Amino acid sequence: MKYVYWLFPFALIACNNEPQSKVSEEPTPVEITVLPSWNEGTTKDAIIAYVTAVTDEKSNNYIPIPDRIATFDNDGNLWAEQPAYFQLFFAMDRVKAMATEHPEWKDEQPFKAVLEDDMATLKELGMKGIGEILMTTHAGNTTVEFDALVKEWIATAEHPTKNVGYDELVYQPMLELLQYLRANGFKTYIVSGGGVDFMRAFVSPIYGIPSEQILGSRIKTEFDYNNGDPMIKRLPELDYYDDKDGKPLNIQKIIGKKPVFSSGNSDGDLQMMQWAASNKYKSFMLYVHHTDSIREWAYDRDSHIGRLDKGLDQAISDGWTVIDMEKDWKVIYPFELIK
Amino acid sequence: MKYVYWLFPFALIACNNEPQSKVSEEPTPVEITVLPSWNEGTTKDAIIAYVTAVTDEKSNNYIPIPDRIATFDNDGNLWAEQPAYFQLFFAMDRVKAMATEHPEWKDEQPFKAVLEDDMATLKELGMKGIGEILMTTHAGNTTVEFDALVKEWIATAEHPTKNVGYDELVYQPMLELLQYLRANGFKTYIVSGGGVDFMRAFVSPIYGIPSEQILGSRIKTEFDYNNGDPMIKRLPELDYYDDKDGKPLNIQKIIGKKPVFSSGNSDGDLQMMQWAASNKYKSFMLYVHHTDSIREWAYDRDSHIGRLDKGLDQAISDGWTVIDMEKDWKVIYPFELIK
Repeated sequence: MKYVYWLFPFALIACNNEPQSKVSEEPTPVEITVLPSWNEGTTKDAIIAYVTAVTDEKSNNYIPIPDRIATFDNDGNLWAEQPAYFQLFFAMDRVKAMATEHPEWKDEQPFKAVLEDDMATLKELGMKGIGEILMTTHAGNTTVEFDALVKEWIATAEHPTKNVGYDELVYQPMLELLQYLRANGFKTYIVSGGGVDFMRAFVSPIYGIPSEQILGSRIKTEFDYNNGDPMIKRLPELDYYDDKDGKPLNIQKIIGKKPVFSSGNSDGDLQMMQWAASNKYKSFMLYVHHTDSIREWAYDRDSHIGRLDKGLDQAISDGWTVIDMEKDWKVIYPFELIK
Repeated sequence: MKYVYWLFPFALIACNNEPQSKVSEEPTPVEITVLPSWNEGTTKDAIIAYVTAVTDEKSNNYIPIPDRIATFDNDGNLWAEQPAYFQLFFAMDRVKAMATEHPEWKDEQPFKAVLEDDMATLKELGMKGIGEILMTTHAGNTTVEFDALVKEWIATAEHPTKNVGYDELVYQPMLELLQYLRANGFKTYIVSGGGVDFMRAFVSPIYGIPSEQILGSRIKTEFDYNNGDPMIKRLPELDYYDDKDGKPLNIQKIIGKKPVFSSGNSDGDLQMMQWAASNKYKSFMLYVHHTDSIREWAYDRDSHIGRLDKGLDQAISDGWTVIDMEKDWKVIYPFELIK
């Protein structure tokens, strides 16, 4: 099926927002296939109906381009998050790489568990252990050094069961959704509980989202003039946790506008959804429901990772759109298209 | 004098940053007057020479569009800041408006001094007094309420000596510089010690800078679901002070890229300048020097507001560009053009 697809000039107005701009007319429509990796059905129809309504200048639901803010969670929403958040695998690989300089880790938790791939003990050690692993591996360096470490890791690391690079486990239908929204004048943001500097090191070319449109958790930093060669040092202390309430608050701090389109997959995204749902403009709330145990993973209310429980209840009661991954998506990963 | 001026498509690429973008060629040049309110001379020449060099694809100094990040201080840099920061006048006007509900303020400092326009006592009470005035007037409401209060104030308030609206005291030459940079593919940001929500309430249409490109100081906030009508409450505690070291740190937190063009007018901007100066790309550091005691104000090393001392030293020693407001600017304010 083909839909009318609006091309570039939107994006221009969306980001420049200048009163003196001469580009104010809707551009010439071009025929193109929209959301090709989505199966026909109510989910795809709902997305297209929404975008069509809010970009129609004659509609009561029209949204001015500068207000077309779309926020997407990352883990479990734009890429997979099982059997553990991919950033934790990065941290564990860092512990292994750093272990030669820390012989004491052989006998010290939580490092011992990481070095022995003892996931059961790691789980027992809980958030305190994971926090220690994250701070040890994410701090104590500069922003430039950390960026290089992540780039090096993502270029070579492989997912433990899927045996492909972690960055290959992004969701093709969501990549198409991001593109479709941008082509319709939406400014797409990532708003993730994951580390902002971890994401920024590699996701921009994958998602087409520049670093300044990526919001996430972060650790404290310190500026050092360093005799004219300034650096920003990363300190082992949490600065901001971009999850739950932290999501709408960070959106307000950094973007200063309420999203009209919000997409997530867990209860950690619920407040962001509620915030978007309260927009004076017609808004769209989209939950990814992990229902595909074969191609991806199936989990929701009882999962330790990406638990979707209260969010699913509110989605159902408030009529938000829920993606049934198994039924709605023709393919999950981009590499399926090439095969 | 006329210069070659590059038009719109740049902005598109700068914000969309999509690998699949089809717009990658330099646009057709159009003749237009560049920086018309700037007198001919070394300052104007230096700006144009820089922009010309870094936007020339054949130059070794070429900067890819997504990396053309330009950061501008606000107070004393894009608009005036004398005899006190304009946001303080807003706070004082708020104290007066709120005083009917606080009869006790007649005898209580720092409010008594505000109600009596006793600037000498206010100055004596120092940062502690000013902090109390700011928290009392900026917190205890929602983001929506605060935005409305600022909009209402800016629409009616007048500067105590210039007798025009505060928003008329923006610098025309800097408005032209912002436009010129954007027309050349730069993404323009405000990075100010002033309150981010105060600025966002009215500066976007003036400067052509959307809320998501405004960084500033802010107070803590709290999300309240409020039975389905969620609000963000403003709390009387500082969350981030966007000055000095806080500027490059906030740029890294929010933008995630090092600026190539940085403009300020005080020592509070020095770390942001140093950060830009360390860019791997050719960068441009621009200080506004307040030298015009007739049309604006003349102050630098000894000023309590907008002190420019260490910054001026480093600008001179490192060859940064310093605007001599009296000599370099034909007009200061937009209303001079209309007269």
